[in-house]
Amino acid sequence: MKDSYVLVTGGTGFIGSFTALELLMNGYKVVVIDNLTNSSVESLNRIKKLANLKEDIPFFKVDFLDIDALENLFNSYKFYAVVHTAALKSVGESVQKPLLYYENNLCGTINLLKVMKTHNVKNIVFSSSATVYKQNLEGNRLVESDPLGCVNPYGRSKLFTENMITDVADSEPGWACVLLRYFNPTGAHPSGEMGEDPRKVPSNLVPYVSQVAVGKLEKVHVFGTDYNTTDGTGVRDYIHILDLAKAHVLALEKILVVSSSNKSSVFTYNLGTGTGYSVLQIINAMSESSGRKIPHVFDPRRKGDVDTVICNPSLAEKELGFKAKYGLKEMCDDLWKWQSCNPNGYQ
Amino acid sequence: MKDSYVLVTGGTGFIGSFTALELLMNGYKVVVIDNLTNSSVESLNRIKKLANLKEDIPFFKVDFLDIDALENLFNSYKFYAVVHTAALKSVGESVQKPLLYYENNLCGTINLLKVMKTHNVKNIVFSSSATVYKQNLEGNRLVESDPLGCVNPYGRSKLFTENMITDVADSEPGWACVLLRYFNPTGAHPSGEMGEDPRKVPSNLVPYVSQVAVGKLEKVHVFGTDYNTTDGTGVRDYIHILDLAKAHVLALEKILVVSSSNKSSVFTYNLGTGTGYSVLQIINAMSESSGRKIPHVFDPRRKGDVDTVICNPSLAEKELGFKAKYGLKEMCDDLWKWQSCNPNGYQ
Repeated sequence: MKDSYVLVTGGTGFIGSFTALELLMNGYKVVVIDNLTNSSVESLNRIKKLANLKEDIPFFKVDFLDIDALENLFNSYKFYAVVHTAALKSVGESVQKPLLYYENNLCGTINLLKVMKTHNVKNIVFSSSATVYKQNLEGNRLVESDPLGCVNPYGRSKLFTENMITDVADSEPGWACVLLRYFNPTGAHPSGEMGEDPRKVPSNLVPYVSQVAVGKLEKVHVFGTDYNTTDGTGVRDYIHILDLAKAHVLALEKILVVSSSNKSSVFTYNLGTGTGYSVLQIINAMSESSGRKIPHVFDPRRKGDVDTVICNPSLAEKELGFKAKYGLKEMCDDLWKWQSCNPNGYQ
Repeated sequence: MKDSYVLVTGGTGFIGSFTALELLMNGYKVVVIDNLTNSSVESLNRIKKLANLKEDIPFFKVDFLDIDALENLFNSYKFYAVVHTAALKSVGESVQKPLLYYENNLCGTINLLKVMKTHNVKNIVFSSSATVYKQNLEGNRLVESDPLGCVNPYGRSKLFTENMITDVADSEPGWACVLLRYFNPTGAHPSGEMGEDPRKVPSNLVPYVSQVAVGKLEKVHVFGTDYNTTDGTGVRDYIHILDLAKAHVLALEKILVVSSSNKSSVFTYNLGTGTGYSVLQIINAMSESSGRKIPHVFDPRRKGDVDTVICNPSLAEKELGFKAKYGLKEMCDDLWKWQSCNPNGYQ
């Protein structure tokens, strides 16, 4: 199996690049594609360095809306599996440009699945998201069987892609699919060589806080101080990108076990630590890691936000053998290392 | 407004052709597109005859996956609105070929919406379906606010298209959208000139029964005789195609009223009679209309079927002024007229 390749779509992006690195460190052969609309090929040089590779990682600038390019790729390489991380991912942008998100995330994935099916590549790990869960006002830790429901096009594109993959697996035998519902991936490589490189003002809290720490942004906006949490600010579940990347390797190992079966399998796992941190805790931790004060202001609640979103990570532990190793301090230390060494990202 | 055209996608199909006829009878100018994979251009000749037109209806064989063809069309005609009936529609086939259904129904609609947006055509009536409702074990009459949830790719493609249209309307002002949830459209034109022309063995009950009556199929399979209904067989809500077509004209009138507003509007309406008939009642009614015995056998329940699916049609009556005029007898009489005059459909 390790003679063939794993295709990482979106492999120069945050999740994709760390997953590609982790795969390479575990002896997998990797091909990366990306359309580079929101990432940089420099990440591949960093992967090469950190994985101590002699040769370049096979990379193709491919937009998965271009089915002919995908066909060519699958004609050129024998793939064992696809780790499908490519997607547009800004919630706010998705509300303004739903058709862009639906075309890219859905039609792109349809193309990918069509080409996989044609070439009899039926193993896929898909980057889903905690956003597929229905808002949980009780603040209970989310389990994979909890009710689903999305409030924006980005989330709907993730949930619907889960449905599509499941329908394809149900339509014929031989598919092995793992849907990974990420909570809030953050952190960076402890070397300072690799990290998240958002092209625009970050819409996620931790990179935003980090950019304030480094002086690129002025202050953090804390939305809502009257939530039913320890300090009144919203609590979320954060996961170190190194842990997240590791889970993809475990997902591929799971696929290896089941893919010899003559039926199809679809597994869904939460990826988080099971521990929540409030906005103020994040700001304080980042302040400690950076040794800098992080200016912040208190603003009203944002529509649609809830008190607490934490996952129950038991199923991934039980079935994948996955358990997050890193906590908030490592996430912030490593992120700060990356941010301070690369204030302008990979550029 | 009536100087510009209404584009009917899927306009040679069952719903599309009757809607085009009704629009023409009400003074609208119509352009029809269809990829003809499941319909015949002969329907346009029948429309021309019934609507007493001197000129041909502008028709283009366009697949909406071909965005360039859509662009050309929108460059050639000034459209006031789109009645979007084009879709693949077999539940069973969708389970076997989910990617075909998702590509066609979703990516095709994304193309259509993109081109509409580019050309500032923001009025759309969409053919949705009762299948978007979550199975309702209580058998209560479904209202538009009931929980949604689908169990097959066809249904999901309908529900997701509803979501996409709503997201587009939410993303910018000026959209006026009507989502019509059809229950079970049946019947035909009382002249015998127009009707449903399924290319394969019908997957819906009424055309199946009708083809048994005319001798094209051997016998009707009645799935389940122990449902909690009057005679133990499943009860559904049927609507005459003439009533259904009329509702589309009313939907366009509704759009005319709201489209001058500078915000967007999305309306969702059930289209049914609010009365349910059992499988045996349908067989008996078809037997009376045709004057023939209709052989049938009793088989076990099918997975996923429920006792009763009937709509509450009040909202469409209140907001569209729509009320179904025809009952089961007209549906069966007209269907039989069509079936017996055209045992091989339009061919």
